[in-house]
Amino acid sequence: MGLDTTAQKVFDAITARLQVVSDERIKRKLQEGGKVSGYWGTAPTGRPHVGYMVPMVKIAECVAAGCEVSIYLGDSYAYLVNYDVSQKIVAYRTQYYRFLIAAILRAIGVDMSKITFVVESTYTSTPPFCNDQARMLVHSSQEEIKMVGLEVTTAHMMSPLLCPVYQALSEVYIGGEFQLGGEDQLGMYAYADKVLPRVGYEPVSHLANVIIPGLHKGKMSSSALGATKIEWLDSPDTVKKNLEGISWAELDGPAARFVLPMLQHCLFPLYHLGALGSEKITAQLVDGSTKDYTTYEELERDLQAGHLGFETLQPTFIAFINQVLSPIRAEYATNQEWKLAEKLAYSD
Amino acid sequence: MGLDTTAQKVFDAITARLQVVSDERIKRKLQEGGKVSGYWGTAPTGRPHVGYMVPMVKIAECVAAGCEVSIYLGDSYAYLVNYDVSQKIVAYRTQYYRFLIAAILRAIGVDMSKITFVVESTYTSTPPFCNDQARMLVHSSQEEIKMVGLEVTTAHMMSPLLCPVYQALSEVYIGGEFQLGGEDQLGMYAYADKVLPRVGYEPVSHLANVIIPGLHKGKMSSSALGATKIEWLDSPDTVKKNLEGISWAELDGPAARFVLPMLQHCLFPLYHLGALGSEKITAQLVDGSTKDYTTYEELERDLQAGHLGFETLQPTFIAFINQVLSPIRAEYATNQEWKLAEKLAYSD
Repeated sequence: MGLDTTAQKVFDAITARLQVVSDERIKRKLQEGGKVSGYWGTAPTGRPHVGYMVPMVKIAECVAAGCEVSIYLGDSYAYLVNYDVSQKIVAYRTQYYRFLIAAILRAIGVDMSKITFVVESTYTSTPPFCNDQARMLVHSSQEEIKMVGLEVTTAHMMSPLLCPVYQALSEVYIGGEFQLGGEDQLGMYAYADKVLPRVGYEPVSHLANVIIPGLHKGKMSSSALGATKIEWLDSPDTVKKNLEGISWAELDGPAARFVLPMLQHCLFPLYHLGALGSEKITAQLVDGSTKDYTTYEELERDLQAGHLGFETLQPTFIAFINQVLSPIRAEYATNQEWKLAEKLAYSD
Repeated sequence: MGLDTTAQKVFDAITARLQVVSDERIKRKLQEGGKVSGYWGTAPTGRPHVGYMVPMVKIAECVAAGCEVSIYLGDSYAYLVNYDVSQKIVAYRTQYYRFLIAAILRAIGVDMSKITFVVESTYTSTPPFCNDQARMLVHSSQEEIKMVGLEVTTAHMMSPLLCPVYQALSEVYIGGEFQLGGEDQLGMYAYADKVLPRVGYEPVSHLANVIIPGLHKGKMSSSALGATKIEWLDSPDTVKKNLEGISWAELDGPAARFVLPMLQHCLFPLYHLGALGSEKITAQLVDGSTKDYTTYEELERDLQAGHLGFETLQPTFIAFINQVLSPIRAEYATNQEWKLAEKLAYSD
């Protein structure tokens, strides 16, 4: 069955630029005329870098299209994944993530009345979850668990083996019509699709966004660690220094791998949402003139044709990053609770 | 530090005929002048056979020595161990085990005011347990889990991997000074000794009883399955038929492997506890005369010296088994709840 024009528009907004692994539940809800809701999850471990902007922008688009979106903070998962971090520290990291993600969503203009935060540990110790966990484990082979991804396959401790079960059950305990995750979640999605039905549950639809690489992938050195990513609370100077530190000359270099996806999946979509106070980006062409772009595709065409160079994009890109980061930094500066959470979460 | 005479007597009664893997907590309690308590656990799976008499008699000795003893019914464990049985059926099996074990303990004269039944699922879905389970998994390597025993090592499903954690945590959630288990639990004990301290818990003392083999070990055939063991609710005729069906002639045959340990670990100890209304067993010697035995050692000496033959022991042994089983059968016959639980638990 097809979707009517209005429903198709919502569906397109939800799924634009994503790998749509499955979409049955979204379409069914739209066909019934209901509001679609979904969730994006993260495990509170290290400090998030600006690569998280990709799902955040997608959440902004979903909310703009009328969805309600939950942010699943997988604290139980984070503890299991065995980063040698105590449950107490994980709790502080969860607070830190919550403050940060709320600040990002506000910074990109999301209607926060449509956002719900769900802390995983609020349900992982309840009898229904314990029961479902046991049922999932009884119906999962060790091989199926290990197939979800490298982190689980190579684990030598026990706890990471439970992570696929925790993530799959989030589909039951958070619910809605879809789960949004990075393309590294395809193994997790396949596991949920296979095992949830064995215990009587229907998986949600699975959507996957691209993952933004670090700035210096392939030539990372320990001394360069800090400069290999842009973090959300980096100062304008750090952002500028780290971005200027990468090679902007090569067509297949870090700029292409980091900057282009950020433009495609964040900057242009935010412009289109009206979240950045403009509808276009202005860049200098190689001939010295300037040109306004309203779509990413146009910009990419000019780059490939040689009209536009990465170097001339640099100031535009740095300004964009700092524009998004600016209100987040400001919120952090006045939020004592967030600062304290950060201190306790990342004291090392 | 040594124990005074009274304490040593209690210690000896608790540990007689057992492999004492560790005894620190028992001795510490006795030195402090406190009452020792402990537990014996079982997972409610198939119908128990009379081999369970060994730990039951040990529990009787512990209670007679002043201990309180808990019976740990591992229903969560039984479900995880993946016998393709639903949680509902496991619940009926748990009821069946509880009725049966209480009846056995009453049949051998145990003061039931000293016995507490603990159903595992009453605590496995609580936040403290969930928390401890996560901590144990974070601190257990997959290799350590698989070392506990064949059932876990060879499992291809996920759930049996949690069993060692469940059994180890029973030491925290049931507690007391000791855990009693069969000699097949040594791997479980070693795991608990290794991993509980990593999460801040002190393991209890570990005691292991011998395990009674089936009647026809080594020549089991599917048609002989029913005759390879004596079950608690077998009729006097079945007991007689199954016991007469084994070879009593060979010195190293089934009688030696099944009957002798039952005499050593059940019959004589029950006589000494005054639980069978006599202090001695009377057997016919090979020369046709009869002799009274008050200790197992004396009987074994006569067997080895050829004064006593297995055949002449047969009627004495069959009478003993039927004496113990008789009040259990009677209790079952009038307990409708128990009968219903059995029907629902073992309908296949």
